[in-house]
Amino acid sequence: MAFGKIAILGPGLLGGSLALAIRDQHLAAGVSVWGRRPEAVREVLDRGLAAEASIDAKSVVSGADLVILCTPLGAMADLCRDFLPALSPSALVTDVASVKGPVDRELAPLLKGKARWIGSHPMAGSEKAGLGAASATLFQKACCIVTPEPSTAPEITAAVRDFWIALGSRVVELSPADHDRLVAQISHLPHLLAALLVQAVDPKALPLAGAGFRDTTRIAAGPAPMWTEILLNNREALLRGLDALSLQIENSRNLLSRKDEKGLQELLGRANDVRKSIG
Amino acid sequence: MAFGKIAILGPGLLGGSLALAIRDQHLAAGVSVWGRRPEAVREVLDRGLAAEASIDAKSVVSGADLVILCTPLGAMADLCRDFLPALSPSALVTDVASVKGPVDRELAPLLKGKARWIGSHPMAGSEKAGLGAASATLFQKACCIVTPEPSTAPEITAAVRDFWIALGSRVVELSPADHDRLVAQISHLPHLLAALLVQAVDPKALPLAGAGFRDTTRIAAGPAPMWTEILLNNREALLRGLDALSLQIENSRNLLSRKDEKGLQELLGRANDVRKSIG
Repeated sequence: MAFGKIAILGPGLLGGSLALAIRDQHLAAGVSVWGRRPEAVREVLDRGLAAEASIDAKSVVSGADLVILCTPLGAMADLCRDFLPALSPSALVTDVASVKGPVDRELAPLLKGKARWIGSHPMAGSEKAGLGAASATLFQKACCIVTPEPSTAPEITAAVRDFWIALGSRVVELSPADHDRLVAQISHLPHLLAALLVQAVDPKALPLAGAGFRDTTRIAAGPAPMWTEILLNNREALLRGLDALSLQIENSRNLLSRKDEKGLQELLGRANDVRKSIG
Repeated sequence: MAFGKIAILGPGLLGGSLALAIRDQHLAAGVSVWGRRPEAVREVLDRGLAAEASIDAKSVVSGADLVILCTPLGAMADLCRDFLPALSPSALVTDVASVKGPVDRELAPLLKGKARWIGSHPMAGSEKAGLGAASATLFQKACCIVTPEPSTAPEITAAVRDFWIALGSRVVELSPADHDRLVAQISHLPHLLAALLVQAVDPKALPLAGAGFRDTTRIAAGPAPMWTEILLNNREALLRGLDALSLQIENSRNLLSRKDEKGLQELLGRANDVRKSIG
């Protein structure tokens, strides 16, 4: 048993999946879940996701070795202030938000000297959301980025690493800033682009959609409020990603306009190579 | 048995899948396959895809009720000129190219008075290519667009419709011009965009790719020479699609720059609705 008690705050897709995975893999002696709404708490208990669940964050984190924030990013600091008095100084606190700079800037000062803090980003979402879509296998073979600052003690990084590896994830270490820059490109830009593409298409074309269009735009079905928060919190890096993409679009427009067969085939060939390299 | 003999010209992914599907569903008394290279012909025979295969297009189309051109678009007119003397005047000739205007402009005059012509576009490709990826179920539940001109006799449209429906496809009728305009948006633009996106990303971000990025860019692994031909043959409509997308990008850039939460959430919400509508 790696942990005594694990506290999960926010029983959505990620929080719910964590509870299921921890239960199935016996990673903790106990799991306690905080939900903002009594109905969410009841659902957690009814589904047997955890033995303990409450709308009282203090009682949920009390005695926990590991505290995982799974709420929307904007709710984390207030929640943290709320449960801080009940937090054990030896507790490891992490989160699952998709943007790390803003979280780190808010939580690191709050938790300094009060607990051991490090950010995590399990890249294991889906276009589905909510507890109903939770799955015990969500983190298996997923990439999880952990984001130590230079001041983070190596044993904190090691502990959170071990946790995600135990859930079957592949762990990558990046600074919060590098995380946000790279994830803007590999996740936030594709998400925005999928949303823009479905709206650039004549509605008359939609009944003709094949597997290619469905795959390309699947993530556009992801929850709008959650993604609005993510995109706004990483907007600088995202704007630079849009710049890079616009350059590519301009280049392809030139190739098409001058019927440059060789240039276009080279472009598509390079894309083949890159895409095939990630399997 | 719907057809006596069906001739398939070009045993790639689509031609090979057609041979398999026709065989499995007993849609013809016999299938004959033309391949440009003797090795391709041998592979067709070795795999039992057809009882007859040859590099001689005349012998392949001779006596066929249905002739399906599955070669690259640029090879169709010459091939057609080659087999024309052997073609039965009652034969129904169709093709599977992804762009219909250029095919129609080349083949309709060639075949006028020599056979019954109508274009088809089964939207059932994949990022894989070649006979090795052929599947008897490729056309099931796929959308197949048939493209009559105003001068096309209704019984020609009905016959080709029945053929694709027998293969399990959902058939949509569009003029060649409408086809090219709408398919530029729903297929060619997403393809180009996937190729541009993988190249707009810092290579350091690639190891972080999750299911979202993989789905969004899957089609970028499609065969570069084939897609070069498709994109160039539909470049006018594709350029208009790029214009529409660039407008969307500009709009999203403005929303991000002025931190317009409401506007961004509306944009993502509309994308949700559109994406969910196509299942």
